[in-house]
Amino acid sequence: MSASTATSEVTHIVNAFADAWNRHDMEEFAELFAADAEFVNVVGLWWKGRAQIRQAHEHTHATMFRNSRLTILETTVRFPSPQFAIARSHWRLEGHETPEGQALPPRTGLLANVLVSTGGAWTIIDSQNTDIVEGALSRPQQADGQHQGDVS
Amino acid sequence: MSASTATSEVTHIVNAFADAWNRHDMEEFAELFAADAEFVNVVGLWWKGRAQIRQAHEHTHATMFRNSRLTILETTVRFPSPQFAIARSHWRLEGHETPEGQALPPRTGLLANVLVSTGGAWTIIDSQNTDIVEGALSRPQQADGQHQGDVS
Repeated sequence: MSASTATSEVTHIVNAFADAWNRHDMEEFAELFAADAEFVNVVGLWWKGRAQIRQAHEHTHATMFRNSRLTILETTVRFPSPQFAIARSHWRLEGHETPEGQALPPRTGLLANVLVSTGGAWTIIDSQNTDIVEGALSRPQQADGQHQGDVS
Repeated sequence: MSASTATSEVTHIVNAFADAWNRHDMEEFAELFAADAEFVNVVGLWWKGRAQIRQAHEHTHATMFRNSRLTILETTVRFPSPQFAIARSHWRLEGHETPEGQALPPRTGLLANVLVSTGGAWTIIDSQNTDIVEGALSRPQQADGQHQGDVS
């Protein structure tokens, strides 16, 4: 398989992640992951296994993410070996809400996916997501332990 | 090599990450990474290549992290193949400061490292770091675009 074909295949999986997210189809979303995949979200919640990944996203997509739209802005893919891929995607989320249903402004971040190719198909074995905080070198904190109000 | 030996070797590299951090020896820190490694920090800064990783950490360890101490609380390691490892470490950082030199409270997070074994030695080829925000399902935001002050 050519490198460009493999890149297309991996990028397709990452785009399928966003497609399933935007249809709030968590069954299809979960099928992108290996049974023993792990997922760390933007606040450090750590889900272990496809079932936990599905359950967590079913919960958030019934609440804060029920009207959200995830856009993959760009994905870069590296292949440390032909069977392994590290994909990193710059994303934008909009339409999400507070737990009380109030609209929230868009946010962006970087999603790292590690994928393995078995039998010609790529599966996500690990995901870790990090929000982009513009204008900061590290997480804005205040000396009293509160987050700063404005980080721009 | 037994799985437990490999786990020990990978865990040793992650602990060496913290040891170099705590001695603020960024030359030694950078040597843990492959020349083309990538690193995403907790606010989504994305460094590409060992030289960028070193330069960025030299800057922060001359300023906000100059007196910081990083503790690896626990590392779990998976081996999708004998040559690849995904290590995820729960860490605690203390002694860091604002850009103005004011002490900040400890924070914790999850660091994902992807490592490859070449010639018997493990090298980090990818790192992504995420802060743990206690009590949140997703990043605390307010409808006006400000971060919430209190997330606990």
